Amino acid sequence: MSETKPGENMLWGGRFTGGLDPLMVAYNESIYFDRVLYKQDILGSIAFARANAKNGIITQEEFTKLEAGLQAVKKEWEDGVFKIVPGVDEDIHTANERRLGEIIGKDVAGKLHTGRSRNEQIATDMRLWLRDELVKIEKHLVDFLNVTAARAEKEVDYVMPGYTHLQRAQPIRWSHWMLSYGFSFASDLERLREVIRRVNRSPLGCGALAGNPFGIDRDMMCKELGFDSLLWNSMGAVADRDFVAETMQWGSMLMLHISRWAEDLIIYSTGEFNFVRLADAYSTGSSLMPQKKNPDSLELLRGKSGRVMGQCVGLMTTLKGLPSTYNKDLQESVEPMLDHIKTVSDSIQIANGVLATLTVQPTKMAASLDPFMLATDVADYLVRKGVPFRETHHISGRLVALSENTGTPMNELTYEQVSQVDARFEKDIAAVFNYEKSAEARSAKGGTSKATVLEQISVLREMLKA
Amino acid sequence: MSETKPGENMLWGGRFTGGLDPLMVAYNESIYFDRVLYKQDILGSIAFARANAKNGIITQEEFTKLEAGLQAVKKEWEDGVFKIVPGVDEDIHTANERRLGEIIGKDVAGKLHTGRSRNEQIATDMRLWLRDELVKIEKHLVDFLNVTAARAEKEVDYVMPGYTHLQRAQPIRWSHWMLSYGFSFASDLERLREVIRRVNRSPLGCGALAGNPFGIDRDMMCKELGFDSLLWNSMGAVADRDFVAETMQWGSMLMLHISRWAEDLIIYSTGEFNFVRLADAYSTGSSLMPQKKNPDSLELLRGKSGRVMGQCVGLMTTLKGLPSTYNKDLQESVEPMLDHIKTVSDSIQIANGVLATLTVQPTKMAASLDPFMLATDVADYLVRKGVPFRETHHISGRLVALSENTGTPMNELTYEQVSQVDARFEKDIAAVFNYEKSAEARSAKGGTSKATVLEQISVLREMLKA
Amino acid sequence: MSETKPGENMLWGGRFTGGLDPLMVAYNESIYFDRVLYKQDILGSIAFARANAKNGIITQEEFTKLEAGLQAVKKEWEDGVFKIVPGVDEDIHTANERRLGEIIGKDVAGKLHTGRSRNEQIATDMRLWLRDELVKIEKHLVDFLNVTAARAEKEVDYVMPGYTHLQRAQPIRWSHWMLSYGFSFASDLERLREVIRRVNRSPLGCGALAGNPFGIDRDMMCKELGFDSLLWNSMGAVADRDFVAETMQWGSMLMLHISRWAEDLIIYSTGEFNFVRLADAYSTGSSLMPQKKNPDSLELLRGKSGRVMGQCVGLMTTLKGLPSTYNKDLQESVEPMLDHIKTVSDSIQIANGVLATLTVQPTKMAASLDPFMLATDVADYLVRKGVPFRETHHISGRLVALSENTGTPMNELTYEQVSQVDARFEKDIAAVFNYEKSAEARSAKGGTSKATVLEQISVLREMLKA
Amino acid sequence: MSETKPGENMLWGGRFTGGLDPLMVAYNESIYFDRVLYKQDILGSIAFARANAKNGIITQEEFTKLEAGLQAVKKEWEDGVFKIVPGVDEDIHTANERRLGEIIGKDVAGKLHTGRSRNEQIATDMRLWLRDELVKIEKHLVDFLNVTAARAEKEVDYVMPGYTHLQRAQPIRWSHWMLSYGFSFASDLERLREVIRRVNRSPLGCGALAGNPFGIDRDMMCKELGFDSLLWNSMGAVADRDFVAETMQWGSMLMLHISRWAEDLIIYSTGEFNFVRLADAYSTGSSLMPQKKNPDSLELLRGKSGRVMGQCVGLMTTLKGLPSTYNKDLQESVEPMLDHIKTVSDSIQIANGVLATLTVQPTKMAASLDPFMLATDVADYLVRKGVPFRETHHISGRLVALSENTGTPMNELTYEQVSQVDARFEKDIAAVFNYEKSAEARSAKGGTSKATVLEQISVLREMLKA
Repeated sequence: MSETKPGENMLWGGRFTGGLDPLMVAYNESIYFDRVLYKQDILGSIAFARANAKNGIITQEEFTKLEAGLQAVKKEWEDGVFKIVPGVDEDIHTANERRLGEIIGKDVAGKLHTGRSRNEQIATDMRLWLRDELVKIEKHLVDFLNVTAARAEKEVDYVMPGYTHLQRAQPIRWSHWMLSYGFSFASDLERLREVIRRVNRSPLGCGALAGNPFGIDRDMMCKELGFDSLLWNSMGAVADRDFVAETMQWGSMLMLHISRWAEDLIIYSTGEFNFVRLADAYSTGSSLMPQKKNPDSLELLRGKSGRVMGQCVGLMTTLKGLPSTYNKDLQESVEPMLDHIKTVSDSIQIANGVLATLTVQPTKMAASLDPFMLATDVADYLVRKGVPFRETHHISGRLVALSENTGTPMNELTYEQVSQVDARFEKDIAAVFNYEKSAEARSAKGGTSKATVLEQISVLREMLKA
Repeated sequence: MSETKPGENMLWGGRFTGGLDPLMVAYNESIYFDRVLYKQDILGSIAFARANAKNGIITQEEFTKLEAGLQAVKKEWEDGVFKIVPGVDEDIHTANERRLGEIIGKDVAGKLHTGRSRNEQIATDMRLWLRDELVKIEKHLVDFLNVTAARAEKEVDYVMPGYTHLQRAQPIRWSHWMLSYGFSFASDLERLREVIRRVNRSPLGCGALAGNPFGIDRDMMCKELGFDSLLWNSMGAVADRDFVAETMQWGSMLMLHISRWAEDLIIYSTGEFNFVRLADAYSTGSSLMPQKKNPDSLELLRGKSGRVMGQCVGLMTTLKGLPSTYNKDLQESVEPMLDHIKTVSDSIQIANGVLATLTVQPTKMAASLDPFMLATDVADYLVRKGVPFRETHHISGRLVALSENTGTPMNELTYEQVSQVDARFEKDIAAVFNYEKSAEARSAKGGTSKATVLEQISVLREMLKA
Repeated sequence: MSETKPGENMLWGGRFTGGLDPLMVAYNESIYFDRVLYKQDILGSIAFARANAKNGIITQEEFTKLEAGLQAVKKEWEDGVFKIVPGVDEDIHTANERRLGEIIGKDVAGKLHTGRSRNEQIATDMRLWLRDELVKIEKHLVDFLNVTAARAEKEVDYVMPGYTHLQRAQPIRWSHWMLSYGFSFASDLERLREVIRRVNRSPLGCGALAGNPFGIDRDMMCKELGFDSLLWNSMGAVADRDFVAETMQWGSMLMLHISRWAEDLIIYSTGEFNFVRLADAYSTGSSLMPQKKNPDSLELLRGKSGRVMGQCVGLMTTLKGLPSTYNKDLQESVEPMLDHIKTVSDSIQIANGVLATLTVQPTKMAASLDPFMLATDVADYLVRKGVPFRETHHISGRLVALSENTGTPMNELTYEQVSQVDARFEKDIAAVFNYEKSAEARSAKGGTSKATVLEQISVLREMLKA
Repeated sequence: MSETKPGENMLWGGRFTGGLDPLMVAYNESIYFDRVLYKQDILGSIAFARANAKNGIITQEEFTKLEAGLQAVKKEWEDGVFKIVPGVDEDIHTANERRLGEIIGKDVAGKLHTGRSRNEQIATDMRLWLRDELVKIEKHLVDFLNVTAARAEKEVDYVMPGYTHLQRAQPIRWSHWMLSYGFSFASDLERLREVIRRVNRSPLGCGALAGNPFGIDRDMMCKELGFDSLLWNSMGAVADRDFVAETMQWGSMLMLHISRWAEDLIIYSTGEFNFVRLADAYSTGSSLMPQKKNPDSLELLRGKSGRVMGQCVGLMTTLKGLPSTYNKDLQESVEPMLDHIKTVSDSIQIANGVLATLTVQPTKMAASLDPFMLATDVADYLVRKGVPFRETHHISGRLVALSENTGTPMNELTYEQVSQVDARFEKDIAAVFNYEKSAEARSAKGGTSKATVLEQISVLREMLKA
């Protein structure tokens, strides 16, 4: 029984008869996105060559040539003059090594890769790049939280309706609202620092899967490249993309917070709420309707959250189906990582810009307060007189009903009306109808009283310290 | 109480003090991806102008100028000479209209958008583009299925192990395996034709949300642009991105099939299975290990499935959180749509290339067949003698155990050994141990006998007809 | 080199030393959820036995016994007296067959499964069950759309603000809003009917993977069970769970629509918008705040959308990683399918209940209309006088600015003020400031004029016909 | 213009005319799953009452009654005698408080909830429960890693093929494979400990959103309940479900690792690989094919990974769309959390059982080694003689080709044949063809030599310490 071979019985046709499918070449190559990693690729190569020189795998002279050549390649990238050779430079590693050979000659350049695999190389490049980007993002996040804290401090006197179920619930401070998200973002910051520690581990010196056969000094390379520690199993080290997935899980959570923050502000900037106004820089008009001023920045933040969450799902779905060690599917971790990081980084900065330039309208906030929001305070008044809470809750509910049925705002019911509902109300019940006082009453830790809001600001600022 | 304004109390700093945030400009603009839609944008504009001319909103002369100008803009794109003005041409609509004004003058160009909104415009552009791309994809899918059918017909005689739980189960035909995926892809084809019908509906003439105030003839535009039918509610029409989401659901299912198909072939091309060999065009080597030939094409297909599925989740997550009508979040549907379609289209063609050039090794398939795979046939033998199946299943199981315990392949047990297990075995039991015969026995519709496999091929080919 | 065996070198301990892990038994068994399929399992068995009798695999007498026995088992389930034997009845197939053996004796019962596999059996059960449930859901969806249409017809005169970006945009009819979702749900209905066709295909007679060896009449069973058509490849037929995944994709899209519909109504029922009020039956109060009336029903609809979407992602993620044919992972399709269907079915009915009992407040809607929403109409006024739209858009924008700067509502600017902005305004510009008239102007198909809204209702009702 | 009211114009019918929709009651109630939290609910109530007693909101005597009553309710749950009142006990809080009132009288029971909201109550219950469960899971994970380490230590001498792209790559130790996953799970352990810290923070004393108005001592309650620290903003504290989402992100990553580990073992247990055999306790047979022994445990692990990942997506999708503070959508976080934790916990224990009882077949592993896997060692041989690696890689590649073309295994080529390919090969090249030696050569940290594998075991064990 003879084996079937392509070409011999090509009755099923198909597009490809020769040895090459140009679409496959394009489908496979990564240079058009992984060139972003040029610097990390070169620094990793220098560290690797230095360690091989220490071991005597290459001579010191060879190392000197390699290092100089690699620095020359790096300069070409930095100067924007590096020329990618289409169809040859399929990835950044190939491109750099090809160019290195042209500069210092193939004999020495051909020793660079001794004992090294592209598997460990791309893992090293990605981890170095990602670490550096996450450190920048950490800085943007701290900036955003500093603006939050400063604005919360400055505007602590504004009282607005607090909502649950998007229904008016109780008066709160505007700063209390800002800080509610502030603590979510502070949690993201705490977690980001943990993620960075897991990203910043070294796979270099692990070979294709089984380890390095020339006794390379992994600790030395780890130190040179600024890694915190080693990855301890060569098979895992070269194929692990958990560090990307964990970054994306982190980024998804951060963007989820940004999305909810944006959602609140979009609602607060409607004509009906009208609590805040976005700066022109973060709004746009309509091509049809002359009066429109739309919160496009906030909507883009909200929309890009979905994109970022989808990237995480996509990568995890891919990883979930793989057997161990390197599989080419892992190439699909690079492009989403680059877009994810750019999107998250831009979004934090846009959010910061929106918050820093937002116009707040405290009189509109005040206008939206409603006496019914003090119904809990009415119940609390009776609690302080010894009535069980469950009973006070019902009594206050009856006042609400009386107000609705008579069309009289709850704070304008006469004392006679009130005391008929329950005789335990005294004349000082009138003092309960004060939104500022209601807010000040919530003075247990974490509450919306002025002192506790200011305490929150202190706590938050403490959390920003690395 | 005075309202806070940006600039006045900028103690919280933030990056932005002037009226413009360059990052926001970049975050907002879509021209760098939506320019792909230039042709659809222009054809939609011509149809819109023609309908406005019919209504007398513009004169016939104005229409003639508009049409000529728009064709001139289109030609600039086609010739690759259209110059995008950075910071001005924020999207394809703006770019085209800006350029139109330069060519025919602003007075007439300024009438193009009468009664039209960018909301309906982008929805029209996207639907037209997507319809055309899906029709191309339909063609690629039919090609792939034709290769599948031709190969299945040609190689119908190869018998291989069929697996369940990845454990050897029963002998099947190699063509039966190919057709199992063939019918999944045929189901994708059926569904694709349904999706195209829902994509190909016209939002043009719906305004920003409330409808067109100049009585525009939507049917006329619908016909000119090749739409199947109208979208019937203007609010829904301008903000609906379900057609993208449904396309992505469809693409996710197709790629799920491709991923599983690739997974099977990756396993079949291991050294241990060795049933198939990929053509060099679809394989790559290793930078470290000289002997390696890796199925990169299949792994990329598998990896890109995750990417595509993530895009669907991302878009649906974004849509899920939105109130009705147009929100800027919807801009996030464009870029993923473009990448989704490219990835799906490329992947079908790559899969076709892989299949068309695959070398099949029927002798290796035969070598992996194992007498235990006929244990069901042994049971069936007794069933035909009237023994209840549950009993025959146990008897055959005892033969399996005997074979394992004695280290004798099941087909090499003596008749004496066999008949001691159950006296109802006769000498003709020996004839059961024949893989080809086992396959031929599965002759009910859909089974792996030669005739039923050939019938499947006919049915499949019938399904390819539009 | 000796092979390691468990028990022999158990220094690594682990929990399990005997032959059985009770946790594994529980992890594996499905009877506690798949018993829902009891009826389908029994009807499928009867059809299978009847076909085997036709073929002479069993006698007519045996079939009569089997059928009677199976009907007796079915009755036990229906009467709630079927006793599951823990640890024995691991799934519904085992349970039914065990009980059948007790009723009619093992000799005949042992012939039921001849040539059949649990793989085809569970696939048959699931498809039958799902088909029946989807038909019920189709009915609920039609009911919901009938309420939508009736309400839209009755309340066609209410004019409310239409929003884009959640900013007031143009006046629309309340019915127009209801219909915008109505057409989304009608699209879901159209697609549901397509899904049902793909669900309702028969895998019965496909064996474990290779087909049926006794020439069973698949068409006969297909007809008896009410399937539309056959699945044509036995390997695919037994392992395909695409019908569940496609149902979940459909359910995700439907719930996405319900979520957005609910989101709009939640916003419309805030104190600030106040356009609608939920019936008490669909609201709840607060344990702490006496005044609260929360739209819990709408929030649950919105929350359950996420659950449903996650189920789809979960199943597709599982399927994506599998090789072909049956793998036990597929068991994970059953429980999510059951919950998905229940959630979707309940949700449509809840949404219908909410809509049918909603109180609409047209005076509040009218109060939220704002003269700026007529800025497009002002521009259109000039368009009708021959001014290019781009110019009219700017002129109208200047009126908006004048209104904002002078604090005079746009409709209260004097004719002098208006004509200073542009001399082409005549006195009849005053007539433009009429919300009803603005809505009536949008009379192109799909627009918000009364006639076109009524036309939409007709079109929608037509779409409900099967 | 009169407002429309339900009942008055019910021409649109709908199912519901009375005040109650039984389906809505069922859709809304949570008691059937949140009763799992009974203990946490009661302990939280006791802590809350004690703090209110300290503040004088209730008397010491009242507290004593409340505590005794709550302990009595707890005992009823523990004894399985608590009777849920259908339609009344909609959630665990209502159920416990209702029963408390029956036991100690409504007057005192009615004071329990003073200043408290169900929002903070459910958040407290969920965090307490989750913390306790995660601590148990931490223990299961440490157990699993201890088995991994013990087994790796015991079986360190077995050499098997290492794969990349599922193609044979280089010889590795079986223990090296086990440890590659060991370090992934150790990373999960590290991260779990971080997650627990973020879960174990106290929302108690935050009210419905604005804080507690009776100056409750949150630190005292925090300490009593074993929380690590406070949540610092009352709005965030009551509505935050990030702790569930982060747990699910963690669980998704862990299950992703388990899925890949299972995938490898499924492949290794095929007839073609045959490296390992599952214990009977973790396998099942076939209803149709007597010879089958299927790795159901591993497949369920793989399948349940998808389920768990979908739950995470579902919850995050829901959260993403919400405005701030409590919305009823959050109820949808409870049921998935319960299922997620059960699935993850069971799965780790099942994986441990599988590993602890697995039979390893080192002779089969050895049989699958292939001389081509030493091609890198051949290249390394020349590197040690000073040939640049890129050249040695090509030379070794030519040896591979010679072997393939002549059909002679690479290790059986004559010295003459070898030296004709490159004259720098000396007779000692024969010594390269030794799998054990190849493994021993990979002795840089993290490699597959015996010493470095043993070092990995030490490092791993160190990581298990809390």
